[in-house]
Amino acid sequence: MTEHTHWDALWVNVHLATMTDGYGEIRDGAIAVRDGRIAWIGRRDELPAHQAAVTHDGRGCWLTPGLVDCHTHIVYAGSRSDEFEARLNGATYEEIAQRGGGIMSTVRATRAASDDALMEASLPRVRHLLAEGVTTLEIKSGYGLDLDTERKMLRIARHIGETMPVRVRTTFLGAHALPAEYAGQADRYVDLVCDSMLPALAAEGLVDAVDAFCEKIGFSAAQTACVFEAARKHGLPVKLHAEQLSDQGGAALVARYKGLSADHLEYLSPEGIAAMADAGTVAVLLPGAFYFLRETTLPPVQALREAGVPMAISTDCNPGTSPMTSLLLAMNMACTMFRLTPLEALAGATVHAAKALGLSEEIGSFAVGKQADFAVWDIARPGELAYAIGGNPCQCVVKGGTARFT
Amino acid sequence: MTEHTHWDALWVNVHLATMTDGYGEIRDGAIAVRDGRIAWIGRRDELPAHQAAVTHDGRGCWLTPGLVDCHTHIVYAGSRSDEFEARLNGATYEEIAQRGGGIMSTVRATRAASDDALMEASLPRVRHLLAEGVTTLEIKSGYGLDLDTERKMLRIARHIGETMPVRVRTTFLGAHALPAEYAGQADRYVDLVCDSMLPALAAEGLVDAVDAFCEKIGFSAAQTACVFEAARKHGLPVKLHAEQLSDQGGAALVARYKGLSADHLEYLSPEGIAAMADAGTVAVLLPGAFYFLRETTLPPVQALREAGVPMAISTDCNPGTSPMTSLLLAMNMACTMFRLTPLEALAGATVHAAKALGLSEEIGSFAVGKQADFAVWDIARPGELAYAIGGNPCQCVVKGGTARFT
Ligand SMILES: [Zn+2]
Ligand SMILES: [Zn+2]
Repeated sequence: MTEHTHWDALWVNVHLATMTDGYGEIRDGAIAVRDGRIAWIGRRDELPAHQAAVTHDGRGCWLTPGLVDCHTHIVYAGSRSDEFEARLNGATYEEIAQRGGGIMSTVRATRAASDDALMEASLPRVRHLLAEGVTTLEIKSGYGLDLDTERKMLRIARHIGETMPVRVRTTFLGAHALPAEYAGQADRYVDLVCDSMLPALAAEGLVDAVDAFCEKIGFSAAQTACVFEAARKHGLPVKLHAEQLSDQGGAALVARYKGLSADHLEYLSPEGIAAMADAGTVAVLLPGAFYFLRETTLPPVQALREAGVPMAISTDCNPGTSPMTSLLLAMNMACTMFRLTPLEALAGATVHAAKALGLSEEIGSFAVGKQADFAVWDIARPGELAYAIGGNPCQCVVKGGTARFT
Repeated sequence: MTEHTHWDALWVNVHLATMTDGYGEIRDGAIAVRDGRIAWIGRRDELPAHQAAVTHDGRGCWLTPGLVDCHTHIVYAGSRSDEFEARLNGATYEEIAQRGGGIMSTVRATRAASDDALMEASLPRVRHLLAEGVTTLEIKSGYGLDLDTERKMLRIARHIGETMPVRVRTTFLGAHALPAEYAGQADRYVDLVCDSMLPALAAEGLVDAVDAFCEKIGFSAAQTACVFEAARKHGLPVKLHAEQLSDQGGAALVARYKGLSADHLEYLSPEGIAAMADAGTVAVLLPGAFYFLRETTLPPVQALREAGVPMAISTDCNPGTSPMTSLLLAMNMACTMFRLTPLEALAGATVHAAKALGLSEEIGSFAVGKQADFAVWDIARPGELAYAIGGNPCQCVVKGGTARFT
């Protein structure tokens, strides 16, 4: 008697972009799921004897790993469309700041929002990402800038992961901006972040990683290092908003702490690249913010490529500098504006984004034992995903083995 | 006894962006529909005595006129994602042309496609536009470049208008590119367009307007004038792809023929602007192509504004230079890259786009007697529509009085 392998689900008549070693593909492949994980993957004509509870006919679609949006500020209240409009009607940044605009308007609205209101404001944005095949989402705090509101944001982030079909990784970004009540006392605020907020939030299990905004208009390299030291004390990995508007040596700093990622990087130096390559720190590129801010200095993509630094792509979804809820569009922008290839962009939204979250062993590429997170696309070739502007060929999303048809 | 007004449908608890005179709004308004047209519009507290077969509670949403995408090449077969990918992997334009790439690959695929295949290839793109509140769509031919295929494209365009909830206006664009079989004989091809294709297609009722591509790499101003003369003979309005890559005097030329619109316009001259203003010719801005081609010369928005030339915004949906199926994103790009205000962008996708199609009397703004085409948006203010990148707050689309909830 032949022994049969038992599977919960099997997908056939599909092509697989495995994303192993950056990019790999299996034409006319098959992928089997058991207990929420990939149980078998290979060419259909090499399938072993099996029994599958469900067999899905993919009708020639392509499967990729579920997309990973590894840098978002998607939980916030309020809108900044009024500010966008005022700027286009000629208001200066100073005038907008005087009217209480800018990041502080988001902080005020987020502080004032109830849990329900904050969840309700965030959900449409999350849903839009998910409809495009996103199965893992990083969510940062940083619009509270006080313990209660940072906690509220991180709890909402966890709640999204518990109630929506998406894996959520939380990032504590207390050092995002200086709250008005600490004006002129940045060091004192950083102490609060390190000695009070982070310990409390970490103890509540709300923090998967720690981030900061290292910039002339944010926090200094020395202040950032304090935050990283505190993170190390709590055994938490770090990442950094680095070199977005100027070279502050942030990439080298986060690399020194074996950081998961350095993000933005328009002003990244050769020294920063070398440090990231040594440390295995991922370069997270955020073309939505580049586009929205009309930046002209490009991140050093060719140098990152030559140094072997993995490049991830993310929406940077936030109300002030990237009100973007489409990772596919971020992939197109990475190609169109930053000159990534379409397959680099796809790696940037899957395998390299997973690495940027420290989840390489679990998600981002197809291998037996990894989470059965994938998206089913009605496309002729994987390069189409980054080519289309504003379309969505996603037919079905599978998260932890559970399928959701769109 | 009071006499009651009878309506098919009434919308209350809505705010109305009427778009009359460019932009107008009614807070807490109401809009009534009878026989597919707007029967009443005004403030809710001024509603007359009425009986409505259906009353919709808009729950505080905003209503705008249905969006109008006034410049698309949305009917085509094949994909050019391979070419996009090849370019990003370092292939030159010459190499791609040698491999048979470029517009001629779309012509080959479109010629080869059956009616069904061409319809099936086009529908997902149309559906995506419609999901964002588009109720009127211009569709150009121009990937046939022979009578049979131009006819096939225009018939598919009409078929889309008959089978989908969208108003379609067809444009004959025989003078889009020179087909290989006429290499070196552009004048002979233009004769074919004018003396053979246009008469046949116009006689079949397939042509609502006539367009051409006036450019160094397209057709000369003299050849374009021949096409316009032929259009005039058939009583058809004209429009033009003008001043996209260089100043060919195309805008002044199309204005001389009282053209509906001049489109692209990055290299538009002051003389062209003055001619357009005199003729009432609309400036159709196509930021998707500007973005995709990484252009740096901006259309003269401020000069157009000062001259009182209405500006429309469109996707230019096409496989080679703007594979874009989101009019909302085109509105954001018009603001972000061209510095239109959000309300100018909204006028550009409604009232001014309607004018660019010669449909000002029927659609594009709210007034009694006009078509009941509108979109219902879950937004706090109309400026939000152009602010979000890659989102879609459309809750419901009404076309000719018929509602379709999304
Ligand atoms: Zn960020
Ligand atoms: Zn065009």
